[in-house]
Formats: sequence, C-alpha cells, structure tokens
Amino acid sequence: MQTIQHRHETNIYGEIKLFAGTACPQLAKRIADYLKVPLSGRDVTLFSNDNIWVRLHKSVRGQDVFVIQTTSTPVHRNLMELLIMLQTMRLDSAGRITAVVPYLCYARSDKKDKPRVPITARLVADMIEIAGADRYMTLDLHAGQIQGFFSIPGDVLTAFHLLTDYVKKLLPELKDPVVVAADLGFAKKGRNFAATIDAPIAFIEKRRIGGYDQPEAVSIIGNVNDRDVIIVDDEVDTAGSVSQAVKLVKANGARQVNLVTVHPVLSAPAVERLSALPLSQIITTDTIPIPPEKSELLGGKLKVLSVAPLLGEVIRRAHEGRSVGELFDE
Amino acid sequence: MQTIQHRHETNIYGEIKLFAGTACPQLAKRIADYLKVPLSGRDVTLFSNDNIWVRLHKSVRGQDVFVIQTTSTPVHRNLMELLIMLQTMRLDSAGRITAVVPYLCYARSDKKDKPRVPITARLVADMIEIAGADRYMTLDLHAGQIQGFFSIPGDVLTAFHLLTDYVKKLLPELKDPVVVAADLGFAKKGRNFAATIDAPIAFIEKRRIGGYDQPEAVSIIGNVNDRDVIIVDDEVDTAGSVSQAVKLVKANGARQVNLVTVHPVLSAPAVERLSALPLSQIITTDTIPIPPEKSELLGGKLKVLSVAPLLGEVIRRAHEGRSVGELFDE
Amino acid sequence: MQTIQHRHETNIYGEIKLFAGTACPQLAKRIADYLKVPLSGRDVTLFSNDNIWVRLHKSVRGQDVFVIQTTSTPVHRNLMELLIMLQTMRLDSAGRITAVVPYLCYARSDKKDKPRVPITARLVADMIEIAGADRYMTLDLHAGQIQGFFSIPGDVLTAFHLLTDYVKKLLPELKDPVVVAADLGFAKKGRNFAATIDAPIAFIEKRRIGGYDQPEAVSIIGNVNDRDVIIVDDEVDTAGSVSQAVKLVKANGARQVNLVTVHPVLSAPAVERLSALPLSQIITTDTIPIPPEKSELLGGKLKVLSVAPLLGEVIRRAHEGRSVGELFDE
Amino acid sequence: MQTIQHRHETNIYGEIKLFAGTACPQLAKRIADYLKVPLSGRDVTLFSNDNIWVRLHKSVRGQDVFVIQTTSTPVHRNLMELLIMLQTMRLDSAGRITAVVPYLCYARSDKKDKPRVPITARLVADMIEIAGADRYMTLDLHAGQIQGFFSIPGDVLTAFHLLTDYVKKLLPELKDPVVVAADLGFAKKGRNFAATIDAPIAFIEKRRIGGYDQPEAVSIIGNVNDRDVIIVDDEVDTAGSVSQAVKLVKANGARQVNLVTVHPVLSAPAVERLSALPLSQIITTDTIPIPPEKSELLGGKLKVLSVAPLLGEVIRRAHEGRSVGELFDE
Amino acid sequence: MQTIQHRHETNIYGEIKLFAGTACPQLAKRIADYLKVPLSGRDVTLFSNDNIWVRLHKSVRGQDVFVIQTTSTPVHRNLMELLIMLQTMRLDSAGRITAVVPYLCYARSDKKDKPRVPITARLVADMIEIAGADRYMTLDLHAGQIQGFFSIPGDVLTAFHLLTDYVKKLLPELKDPVVVAADLGFAKKGRNFAATIDAPIAFIEKRRIGGYDQPEAVSIIGNVNDRDVIIVDDEVDTAGSVSQAVKLVKANGARQVNLVTVHPVLSAPAVERLSALPLSQIITTDTIPIPPEKSELLGGKLKVLSVAPLLGEVIRRAHEGRSVGELFDE
Amino acid sequence: MQTIQHRHETNIYGEIKLFAGTACPQLAKRIADYLKVPLSGRDVTLFSNDNIWVRLHKSVRGQDVFVIQTTSTPVHRNLMELLIMLQTMRLDSAGRITAVVPYLCYARSDKKDKPRVPITARLVADMIEIAGADRYMTLDLHAGQIQGFFSIPGDVLTAFHLLTDYVKKLLPELKDPVVVAADLGFAKKGRNFAATIDAPIAFIEKRRIGGYDQPEAVSIIGNVNDRDVIIVDDEVDTAGSVSQAVKLVKANGARQVNLVTVHPVLSAPAVERLSALPLSQIITTDTIPIPPEKSELLGGKLKVLSVAPLLGEVIRRAHEGRSVGELFDE
Repeated sequence: MQTIQHRHETNIYGEIKLFAGTACPQLAKRIADYLKVPLSGRDVTLFSNDNIWVRLHKSVRGQDVFVIQTTSTPVHRNLMELLIMLQTMRLDSAGRITAVVPYLCYARSDKKDKPRVPITARLVADMIEIAGADRYMTLDLHAGQIQGFFSIPGDVLTAFHLLTDYVKKLLPELKDPVVVAADLGFAKKGRNFAATIDAPIAFIEKRRIGGYDQPEAVSIIGNVNDRDVIIVDDEVDTAGSVSQAVKLVKANGARQVNLVTVHPVLSAPAVERLSALPLSQIITTDTIPIPPEKSELLGGKLKVLSVAPLLGEVIRRAHEGRSVGELFDE
Repeated sequence: MQTIQHRHETNIYGEIKLFAGTACPQLAKRIADYLKVPLSGRDVTLFSNDNIWVRLHKSVRGQDVFVIQTTSTPVHRNLMELLIMLQTMRLDSAGRITAVVPYLCYARSDKKDKPRVPITARLVADMIEIAGADRYMTLDLHAGQIQGFFSIPGDVLTAFHLLTDYVKKLLPELKDPVVVAADLGFAKKGRNFAATIDAPIAFIEKRRIGGYDQPEAVSIIGNVNDRDVIIVDDEVDTAGSVSQAVKLVKANGARQVNLVTVHPVLSAPAVERLSALPLSQIITTDTIPIPPEKSELLGGKLKVLSVAPLLGEVIRRAHEGRSVGELFDE
Repeated sequence: MQTIQHRHETNIYGEIKLFAGTACPQLAKRIADYLKVPLSGRDVTLFSNDNIWVRLHKSVRGQDVFVIQTTSTPVHRNLMELLIMLQTMRLDSAGRITAVVPYLCYARSDKKDKPRVPITARLVADMIEIAGADRYMTLDLHAGQIQGFFSIPGDVLTAFHLLTDYVKKLLPELKDPVVVAADLGFAKKGRNFAATIDAPIAFIEKRRIGGYDQPEAVSIIGNVNDRDVIIVDDEVDTAGSVSQAVKLVKANGARQVNLVTVHPVLSAPAVERLSALPLSQIITTDTIPIPPEKSELLGGKLKVLSVAPLLGEVIRRAHEGRSVGELFDE
Repeated sequence: MQTIQHRHETNIYGEIKLFAGTACPQLAKRIADYLKVPLSGRDVTLFSNDNIWVRLHKSVRGQDVFVIQTTSTPVHRNLMELLIMLQTMRLDSAGRITAVVPYLCYARSDKKDKPRVPITARLVADMIEIAGADRYMTLDLHAGQIQGFFSIPGDVLTAFHLLTDYVKKLLPELKDPVVVAADLGFAKKGRNFAATIDAPIAFIEKRRIGGYDQPEAVSIIGNVNDRDVIIVDDEVDTAGSVSQAVKLVKANGARQVNLVTVHPVLSAPAVERLSALPLSQIITTDTIPIPPEKSELLGGKLKVLSVAPLLGEVIRRAHEGRSVGELFDE
Repeated sequence: MQTIQHRHETNIYGEIKLFAGTACPQLAKRIADYLKVPLSGRDVTLFSNDNIWVRLHKSVRGQDVFVIQTTSTPVHRNLMELLIMLQTMRLDSAGRITAVVPYLCYARSDKKDKPRVPITARLVADMIEIAGADRYMTLDLHAGQIQGFFSIPGDVLTAFHLLTDYVKKLLPELKDPVVVAADLGFAKKGRNFAATIDAPIAFIEKRRIGGYDQPEAVSIIGNVNDRDVIIVDDEVDTAGSVSQAVKLVKANGARQVNLVTVHPVLSAPAVERLSALPLSQIITTDTIPIPPEKSELLGGKLKVLSVAPLLGEVIRRAHEGRSVGELFDE
Repeated sequence: MQTIQHRHETNIYGEIKLFAGTACPQLAKRIADYLKVPLSGRDVTLFSNDNIWVRLHKSVRGQDVFVIQTTSTPVHRNLMELLIMLQTMRLDSAGRITAVVPYLCYARSDKKDKPRVPITARLVADMIEIAGADRYMTLDLHAGQIQGFFSIPGDVLTAFHLLTDYVKKLLPELKDPVVVAADLGFAKKGRNFAATIDAPIAFIEKRRIGGYDQPEAVSIIGNVNDRDVIIVDDEVDTAGSVSQAVKLVKANGARQVNLVTVHPVLSAPAVERLSALPLSQIITTDTIPIPPEKSELLGGKLKVLSVAPLLGEVIRRAHEGRSVGELFDE
C-alpha cells in the first residue's frame, strides 16, 4: 500500500501536482478526491482591466503537473487562464505539464468547409502547445482528427462507456429502443452507441434549400414508430437540432424520448428549449459545469454522470507510466 | 490577351513553373495543357539500390513552382519522390513551392481510434512541410480536418461538382434514383451529394460482432426498393464495402446500380470484384492513374472524369493571387 | 499622382488590404480614411456559445494584409478575435500579414518580478506569431523590451510627438510647468517628455511598508510648488496612481494639474476618480476607444488625439517598403 | 547482480523497450539476445493499398524506447515504417525514443556537388526528427558530417574495430599485405584501416573524360605488386568500383585479393559480379540482411560479422547514462 | 546525511555535473566548493586560427549539467566558448543543461530605441537556446524583461540582498545616508534599494541637448546636502556616469560617497576614473572577475562580495527540484 | 541597357542592397564595384566593453539585402558582427537577407570524430539562421556536406575554376607537373584539380604513432621525382602540413614547388614558415584579407586572385532569380 501510495507521488516525472483553473472547480475537486492528492494552491486574480494574473503558492520545479481547466463559457477568459497557467508552470521549470481540458472549445471549427474561414481548433491546439503543455488530455472531441492538430501527445478519452453503461441499465424499462443520431456528422458514433446497447439506429437528415441559411427540410431515415427513442449527440449547444429531432421523432410515432450527450454546452436558449420538450431524461456529464439556475430548470430530467473517476484514473496512469488503453480492455 | 498571358508567367511569386513527378504523368500533362505552360524538365532516376535522385534541368530561383505528384501505389516511393523534389526546389531557392497532390496517401490514418496506433496523415503533412512546401493542393480528403494537420495554407478542392454535374446528366435515364452512402463516415457528404442531385439518401450500416475482426452484420437504412441506386464513397480501395453495398441494395430490390467515387485506389482484388458486380457505371476521376490492364477489365462501365481543368484553374488563380472560392461561387 | 496611387495598391507584397476587428472600429475607419483604402469586408460572428467565427468577403491571396484590432476590454475576446483573423488570413494564403494592435494587452506582465508568476506579454507575442502574423505594429509599449519578445519584426510607434506637440501649444498658458512621472518605471520616458517641452521633471515615489500589499508611503522628489503640473504616464488603468499623484502635487503646492497618457484603459473606478479630481485637462489618444458614457462623465476635460494619421502613414510606408524612421527624422 | 539487472530495466528514462521494424529481424533478435531484453510486441501490417499500419501490443508511456530498423531495400517502405513506428511511440507518450538505424539510407546524397540536386540525407535526418526520435544510433555513415544534419544527439558507431580485429587475425597468412581504398572519398578512412593493421596504403584513382558519364580512366597510385591486397570501402552497392579495383590490382601484380566493407548493400548486379571476381574473402557485417539466395551465391567467400554486440552494448550504455566512448578507450 | 548527500548527486535529471568555461574560473571554483561537487574535467583549446575546441574528459549522458561561464571581456570569445560547451553537452546526450551566466553580455541592447538597430540581447538569448541550453541562470539583468527573450525557463537571481545586507552593516557609520540612482533607468531599483536600507532616494538626471551626442546637462533631483551618499547602478562600465554623479553630488554638498554596483564591467578608462574619484568604498560582486592589476589600482576602496553561495544554493535547488523563491522568503 | 540596369535594382525581392561588415572591406568594395551598386552606409561601433553596435543609415524595408562579412581572425568578433547585422536587417523588415561569407569559420569542426566534442560548424550554421539569414553564400567549404547543416538554401561556390585557369597558364613553363594533395581529406578534390589541368596526382600520407599527438610518420604515395610539383589544399592555416609536404616532395626529388590554396588563413607561424620554404609561387584568393605586413613577408611569391567577380556575378543572379549553375556550364 505504502509503495503504491509513494509510486504516484514521486516518479520519473517528479511528484504529481494538480492545479485547477477557475472554470470547473467541482470537477477538479472530484478528480483530486479520486486521486487522494490535494489541489495545489494558486492565486488567480482578474484585475479590473480584465487581465488575469496567476501566482503559484509553491514551486513546481521538476514536478509532474496537471492543470485542470475546461473551456466552456466564458470561453476566451477560460482559455487564456489555462494558457497563462501553463506558461507559469513552464517558467517555474515544471518537469512535465499536462493540460487537462475536459471540454475543448472551438472543436467545431475544425476544417475549412467553405473558403476564407479559420480552423480555430488548430489555433487552439497551437496555443496550448506554445504556452508550454507537454501533453494534453480531453474527452470526446467533436472530431477525432483534432488529435492530429496537436504535435504533443495526448489522451483523448471518451465518456462513451460511462453513458452506455448508464443507458444499459435503463433498457429493461424501454420498449423497442432505437438510437437516433441528431446529426449526420455523428452517424458513425451513433451507430457505435446503438451497437453497444444492441439497438437499431436511425438518422435525422437536414437539407438546406438555397444558400447559407438555416437548414430547412428535415426528415428521418430509419424507423422510430412506437419505439422508445434515445437521441445521441456529442454536445448540446443551443438545442436547436435536438428540438427538431424530438419533434420529428414524435411526429413519426416515437414513444418516450431520451437525450444522451457528453458535453452540456447549453448556450442561451438551450435550457428553455429542453425544459419545454417532451423529454424523459437528459443524460450528460460534468465536463462542463451546469450552473444551479440551469439545472433547476431542467429539474429531475437531468442526470449528470461524473467523468472525474475516468480523468483521475488516467492522470494516475499517465503519471505512473502505465497503459491507459488497458482501462478499456484495448 | 497578351497581358493575361504575361500575368500568369511573371508575378509577385516569380514565374510559374510546373514540375511532375513520375506518379501521374498524364494528369500532369493535362494540367500543363490547360495552363498552356510546359512541364519543366527534370531527371528522376531510380538507382539499383532503390534510391531516387532528382536533377532539375534549369534553375527555379525566385520562381513560383508547382510540383504535381499523386501518392498512390507505390505509395512510399511516390511520396519520397515528392519530398525529394520539394527539397530540391527549396535548395535551389525557389520563390514559392506548392505541392500538388491529387490523392493524398494515408488520409485514413487520421486519428487514434484505438490506443497505440499512429496518425500517419499528420506525419505525411509534417513531412511535406519539412521538405519545403510553402503551400499544398489536394482533392477530397478523406476527412476535411486533415487540413488542420498542415500549418501551411492549402487548397483542398473537391471533384464533387464534376461528379454531380455528370450524374445530373444521367438523371433523365434513371428511375427514382436514390443515393446510398457505402460507409457511415461518408454520411454527411453522401447527403450533400443526394441533395445536389435532388434525390433521397440511404445508408449502409455495418456492425462488428465481437473484437477487431471484419464487420459482419450489414443492413440498409432507408429505402432502395425498385429504385436506381447511386452508391457514393470518397475512394474505392479493395472494393470490399462496395461489394457488400451492391449485394445488399440488390437484395433489397434495387434496380440499376451505379458507383461514384473520387479516388480510384483499386487495390489488389478491387478490379476483379468490380468487374464481377452488376454495376452499370463506375464514375471516377484521374486523381490516381488507372493502368490499362485494369481499365480494360472494367471496360465500358468505367467513366473517368479529369480533374485537370480544376487543378489547372486553381494553380492559375493561386499564382495570380486570385480567389479560388469564386470558382465555386463561394 | 496616378503612379503613387497605384504604388500603394500593388507592390512586392501584393495589394494593400485593411481589415478591422470589432474592438476599435472608429480608429480603423480613420486609418482607412487617411490611406484612402476602404476597409475590406468580413463577417465576425459571436455565437451564443461564446465562440467567434470569421469569414472574409473576398480572397486575400498574395495580398499585403493589415489587421487592425486593439486589445482593450473585453481583452480575451478581442485578442482571440485578432488571432482568429490572423489565422484566417494565413490559411487564405495572404502574401504578408501585419497585426496592427494600437494597445497591446498584458504589457505590464513583462517579467518575473517575483517567483512563480507568468510573463504573459511573451505569451501574447507568441500567440500573435503562431496565429500567422509576419509583422506587428503597436504604440508605446509599457516597456520597450517587449519588442524583443517577438521574433517577427515590428514597428513600435510612439504617440510621444503627438502628445508633446499638443502640450507645447498649451505652454504659453502654463506657469512654470513641471512634468511629474506618476511612476518610477516611467522615469526615463517622463524625463524625455520634460526635455522635449523644456520643463523640469519631478517624481512620485511610493514605498511599500511590509508585504505584498498596496503601496503606502508616497512622496514627491523634486519641486512642484506654485507650478502648473503635467502628470505623465503610459497608461491610466484604475487611475489609482494618478489620484495619489494629483493629491500629492496639490498638497505640495501645485497650481493647475494636467494629465497626459497614451492609453486610456480607464478600468472600473477610473472615470469616477478622474472626474472627481481637480484636473484641468486629460490628454490622451484613441488607441483604446472611450465609450460615450465614459467620455461624457469626463466632459470637457478630455482631449483625445487620434493616432490614425500616424498608423496610416506607417502602414503606407511599410507597404511601400519605405523608411518609417524618416517620419521622425531618425 | 539483481541491482544491475534492475538498473537497465528502470531508469531516469523509464524502462528499456526494444522494438523491431520488419527490415532486419535477425539483427534485432541478436541485439535483444545480447541485452537479455525481449523484443516488444507490435503489429506491422501492409495493406493492399500499400499503406503500413502499426499497433503496439503494450503501452510505452514513460519508457526508454529503441526502435531498430535498417533502411536498406525496399528503402522507402522501410524508412516509412521506421517513421510511423517513431510517431506511434511519441503519440503513446514514450519517455525517450531512439531510432536505431544500422544502415542509414541516402547517405551518399549528402551535398550539392552540382546545381539543382537534393541533399536527401538531410531530408531523411529531418524526417526522423519530425517523426519523434529524441536520439539516433547508426554505424559508419558515408560521411561523418551527416551527424551535423541531425539536431538531435546520436551515437554514430563504427564497425571499424570489428573489421580490423578480424583482419588482424588473418595477417599471419597474408604476404606483404597492402590496403587499397577503392574510392578517393574513402582515402582517409582507408589510411586509418591500413595504419591499424600496420600495412601500407594504395589508392584507386578514376577520372572522368568528358561530361557526366561513367568514370573511364582508372589507375592505381601506390604499389600492389606481389602483395596480398585488402580492398576497403564503406559500402558495396552494385560492386562496380570493386570490380574495377580487383581487375586493376590483379593487372598490377597483386596476389590474393580480399574485400572488406561495412554495409553489404549488394544491389542488382553486385552478387553476380562479386561471385565472378577472384576474391578470397568478402568480409562484411549484418547492418543490412543478406538474403539466403545472395549469400548462397557468394558461398564460402562471405564472412558476415555481427554488429549486434556493439549496438546492444551502446543501447545499454545509452539507457544507463554511461559513456559510450569508454567502450573504445576514447 | 547519506540521503541528502545522495539526493543532490542522483536525481530525476541524473547526476549533477559542474563545468566551467575559462571566463570566471575562480567563481566557478567557489561554487564547486559551496556545493562540494568538483568541477568536471574538460579541455578548452584556443587554436592559432582563433578557433575554440572543447573536449569533455568524461561522458555527461543523462546527467544534470551546469555550465558556468560569464560573458565579460573578451565578450565574443567567452560567449562562443559557452555556446560550444552547451552544444557539446547536448551532442553528448546530457539529461538537462543549464547555462549559468553570472553576467549576461549585451543586456543593454534590449530594445530598438531608435530605428535600424539590433536587439542583441534577444539574439544572445536565441543563441544560448539553439546551442542546447534547457535552462539558464543569471544575475541582475539590466532589464528584467530580458527574461521574456528566452523561451526556456530560467532563474534570474539578484545580488540585491547581498549588497543591501552589506550596506546595512555600514549604516551606523553613515550620516543621513541617501541613495542616488546614477541613471533614471535604474530609478525603480534604486528606490527599492533605498527602501530596504530605509534611506531616501535622489536621482541624477541627464539631458541631451541636440542630436545623438553625449548627454550634456546633468542635474540632481532630491537632496544630498550634508549627507553620506550611496550611488547605485546595476553595472559600472566606463564609469562615465559614475564620475558625473560623484562630481554632482559633491558639488551639491554631499559628504562621503560610496558606490554600489552588481557587475564590475570596468572597461578601459573605468579604473583610472574610479581611482581618481573621492569614493570611500566601491562595493561590488564577482559576477565578473576583476584582474589583479585593476583591483590593485582600486586598492582598499574595493569590496568584492561573492555570489558563489547564492549561485551554488540555486544550482542545488534547481537540481533537487526545490523552490528557489523560498530562499528569499518569496 | 537601361532595362538591365533597372532589373538588378528592383525586383520581386525588392532593391539590391550591399552591406559590408568590417572583416573584408576591400573584397566588399570589389564586389560593389563589379555590381556597380554602392555599399550601403552603416555604423559599426566597438565599445570599450567589447560590445558591437550597428546602425543602418537608411531603411532596408522590403529590400534584397546582401551582408558581406568573412569570418577570419578575429573569428568571434567577426562572426558576432555578422549575426548582429543580420538581425538588424531582419528587425528592419528586409525583404530577403543573404549572408555572404567568403570564408566560413569552424568548418573543420564538422563531425564528432571522437566522443564528447562539438560540431561547431553546425552551431555556426544555426546561428546564422536564427539571426535572420534567408540564404547564405560561401566558397569552398572544407566539406561539401556542411551545406546540409543549413536548412536555408545557399550558394556554395568554388574558386576552383579561378585557380585551375591560373595554373593552366603556368603549365607551359612547368616540367612534368604533378599535383600533390597535402591531406588525404582533400584527395578527391586534389584529383579533380589534377584532372582539370591534365596532370597526375600524388598524396601525402601521415600516420599517428600512438595517442592523440601530432602525426609523425609522413610518406608520399605516387611519383614526384624530377617533376614540378603543385601542392593543393583548401586552406593554409599554420602551414604545418604544407611544410611537411614541401620537405617531403623535395626529399623525393621534386623540382620546383608551388602551393595552391583557396583560403589564406595564415595563422601565427604560417607566414614565417612559408617565407622560409623553397616555394616558387603561393597562389590563393582574397576570401580572407592578408594584412600588408604578412604579404610583404611573402613578397613576390604571393599571387592573390580575387573572388569578387565570382561573388558579384552570383549575387546579381541570385537577385535576378537567374541560374548560377549556368555560370559554370552546369
């Protein structure tokens, strides 16, 4: 016991040190609890001129530092705080620095799908590297290819097992469940979800009529009639697509409708929309904190599963130089 | 006329110079013809020790060089030849160097979808950059995100319009056409194809049963019964998926079946499979040369559309500093 | 005339193109007017998930692009917008990209003056470079050494002449003017200011008593008794130092007190403080826009000089490959 | 004993891990045997589209990885396999990665000896670095200067001692031995060889008559008459130079002729040529595997010395942070 | 005891190894004595063609190397020797390399204060990085911002406490001491010095009259009449400013005058000037060696405090991964 | 004429600008004369603290700058001056910067021929790149492979034709001329020299007896008896090898002895040695200036050929984007 305890505290990368930014303090606390390693002290000050200032309470020289910071709203402030913390660690001669970013912002800006636009996800990856991260850790990227935007190694984890395990427990109560991918970009992952819970899959198809305006024609491919539906997507932003999907499956004869999503972005009208929809459950994770006023509106429908044990375990293994793939029998 | 002629010959990037590797000489020739600019002379020697040696006939100092080389089989020889040519241009002080790679190899190795595997597409991007390319040009990447693997700018073009225009002309002869995406990873692009030719879409779903073996359960989502089918995919490699798809749509009542794909990779058993299938047409492009012995086997079914005018026009615009997006009304 | 007109439109770096972010639209407009070159069209969208999206209306291939964006509050949003615009230009194959940042944020975080803190100004410089800027342009950096944080070349301009020229015109009305540097870090530049307007200099000295708390003991070194005072500093943030300075010079017998500063940061309590102080004039520039509600509070005291002709002239010279130093007889 | 055993298994660079590509499996096995460390499991798959895919059986996080892969024919496939393996190690967060390349390809393309040609050896060095190697290890580079093409540190070893020790044992049987350098570029190393075995040196001189064609006039400088000759060169490719040299020394009165070379490249006509020549012994190493059909043709003449103990010992010392120079009393 | 002993000898960065260049052998020896770690052997040869050649006596593979070399006159030879030593360590696969540069040359060339001049301090920082330093250590940079010129982390120490502690002991003998900053660029640090010894501060102000010639008008701001003066500056080069300052304070009624400076550059006329001035004490450090002929001229006035314990302690802490800030209660 | 004149003044790289460091002012002047382009004004100041300071008289924004500076003794001062000039050009936004270094220092430190030594030539290449050179130009590198140390392109020229043309004119007066390579490392180039003037070749062989001391046994391979000898080497440093060679060829019956070398390094005892040797002619170039006191000692024996027309012509062609290879019919 003593040995193992010691093992994850000193190591070829130095001692493990956990730092949290201000974006997801509860998740950071849960990870620390899982690891039985306290969060290290740091001051993060936001001056009246909108500048952030960071100071570490103790030196991280030669230590194995993990900076936990999600990059949800306010996105730019949270991102900059992450970058400043990473640079501070580097300038203080940390042994190794891992950026732990449960939700990576700008992941949807991942290609030039039309001319003269940015690929902001690559910019974000570059910024994380230039600030000083030696490694990164994140969950369920919008596109797996974003891994290739980094030249540093990383652990791109998934809450997939967490979510499918939860849904599997619900199955006895569901009648003829069918998984519905709310977006064709999620078709392949939706299929995997369906296969894991041994259910069929259906797709929502949207077609633009004319220029760059909103999608207009929406149809469903596959059968949802008289079935319990599980709508899946990687993130729920304004809940526009989800609204369309719920209405469409209902119009096509669906019974109970559930929503499963990893990242609860829940921008502006999302909570209003979701609370108005005939949803049985909204199953999601804590990669992004849901403020109390929002979670209250969603009430009993909302089920938040914590990714802390997953992140904690991977941090431990990364620190100890042990396989992460093993965790998933891979 | 004289002015325009002059314009694409001298320029802020110097004079336009086209070089071709040995991988797609005919396509290179077609591009040169389109541009009315001759291919510049170079020796490419393959020594008996398997080493490639390149020598340019004339200097490219301060010139705007385009190196045309596709990276189909033999992949590594072709890739290395491209890299050596790029370095030769750089060492000879070219003004600007663009790698024109109609088919970019290793694009399917674009993410770590399981632990302990490479992301070879990123490696290839890095190699093209380190060899000396200032820009790159390619067509229909397997995943648009691969653009973000490059830190140099590039033009990622699409043969989409070429193919849809061709298919649109066939439509009067087709009965109730339906587009079928042979792979769920192509779902979104398949939908766009279908929308452009104003046809419905259906999907082939494959599920693995058990470990990392071949997909086993295959089903179709959407309706193909008594319809003329257009199977679409970005590339056809061994034609395994296509075979499955054709058999499945036939089993589900499809009438005539056509295949549309950008990149005719046509590895090992592909040609045998395709020639044995009840396909009406195989519509593809010349991003990869199809050797005569293969095209003969496919016979009259095969329709190869040339991407040369597209690449030529974009090379011209890149050289002249004019918009490429305009070409597509974007 | 025609020739000159043409000259600053096409060039070895391509055509001049001005783009503005959303942070200082009026200054950008003034620069454009000075140059008689219109601001190029772009969409900058802020989505409800706090993400910024940029799209250029026309291609900038091979052109000489200047992106004008100040980085005042909201600092992180403005900075990110700048970076995204820079990357968009790069990915669209601009010929040369210059970041024009009238006020560079985080310039006060320019060294580790205590352990375990960041040097955020270096991080910002790195971010501007990695996003794609080939050059940068800014005014009156807090410390000139920040030039060395960039590895790209830049033009670090100064509003010094603009401000001293203005103050020189006031001199006939002033009695025994004395320049007072509000901070010892500005001692050398304060001395230069004083020398240029041919006035003596005095200094405010602050001493901490005890730990890292607020400065407490404040004294004046030099003579201000019965003199008209010109307090100078590079920026006015919360106006705390200025308040102390004004009170101190008044307590030491100063007559009329004026404030001269390049960058009107004017955070939270600044405007309230300044409007309450016995200041005759507040002379500053438009490197940071002062919102109407603030300028109204400051009323007739406030004199904003525009840096647009200076930036415009330097952009022109940078584009034409002409000396900027000449502008200042250097 | 236990301590030593432990020492080369865990270390400041983590545990030692040996991986072999597919190019020199026997040499890799011999190194592993020398080190008493097993080769780690990996899958290397060559798909029908000519793409290579790699998967490690176990994680290498934080470990000290050595990837053994020679880059002989098929050169590009072997090189790419090396690069992909290196990247896979890097993405799996290896602690340190050393590319062990017994024979480094393209080492003869090491300078621009005429205009408009590549320096492919530099390109190869860059590729090895960009793929993720932290260090490299190789033997007898064609030119020692190639060390300077890498910015990572490396161990460039020599089989010199192995070969001279072997030849020294033959000396009692040789009459008036003389060393002959088959190429003037090998003059200095040939002299060192001769000095070590305490024999005189002679040189083959070739002169081109006219343009870039084959060398035509060949002469010998120094005395070989009635002497036993040892022809030395760093590698034997097509054996063209060796053939000339053997014929020339024979024509000048040489008795027995032996050939000593580090790298048995043995391209196309080499084996035929060598087997037809009046050579007593061909002494070489296993930096490049000689396939059975070739070694059979050469029969009893061929003596292959293994570099495995040398590479093994240097890997051990590199892992343990001990001097390699000591090995050679340097 | 044994444990501690062991601790600073082997470590996650390997064993501690001290190397000295030829620029400050005595300081290097004092640091070695403090650490009880011998200086490692190396040959540094200066050939007759002015080239430097370095050879390490033993390997530094995997070790934690500190290269001690100041960059005083002959500046370029000393700098190049430092760079060559750093590269030698890197090529010999050192585990970590720290450049310990007590006095960093070119620190006054830290910004473009006029057009068309270099920022040589940034160039020096880049050269130290490219040569192979992973970290750097120096004392009292002319401007703290130079830290931001490095992208590697560093420890920028200060002899401030050493000097103020020494001066504090002199205080009982001084009458109404006042600190005088010899240059306005040192105003802030001069104020800190004064605050620490609890004395008032005064400033020397110099004004240029006309172009880029020497400063001409010199005045004092603050009161020195009938007081004992402590002139402070970061370095004394030709002692021109100090001469002016001493004369000016004397002319303004100063009693005894002392000089405190970190870096005794003492170029050409400095020693003559200083020995002629009415100075009571010249208090400095050994960041730069003062040759005997110079120290004799300065005689009893000269007090050199050694920075060896400070550097030694920080090297120890850097090696052990312990906080340096703690040393100063920060 | 007017057109050509104009052509080498404005260009896609801007206007041609020549700058000279202080190391080879006469050669720089000769190049300027050849090009009919004046040397641009710059101040190079050496301060009493041994620091160099540079200021350009006029801006080089957007211009095509060539900095001419050889790196002979004082090597480090000359090298640093080159680097500072390069950085100054870069910071002043030059369009393109070429370092013209007729003699590149440290070229003999080009590989690790024993453990624990530097490869200083690579370090020098890195320094030239980091300082800001976009291209380099030099003559007769000690090893052609040094080209591969640079990642920027360059023109590595040769004075070979200049020297062989000169020697060819001497041939009618020589009896049975034979070329002797003074060092085996120059064997191949010596052979080329001999072939070009259609003479046989002989070699000096030196063997160390024992450790790392001076070479001791010296012999000649080939025939020099009763022949006029032309000793060739790339540079003459202390003239130790040359002395040995002259004595040896004389002892072996040589008649008249001439020395041909590109770079007259002429360190410490060289001039004394050379003036004492029975040499008929010493034929060299002006890549390194020979101070009058040295050239007087060598008197009429010394023949210095200027490389200025060669460098001038290549600068012109590089500027105009024309082939350099053409110059040599390559």
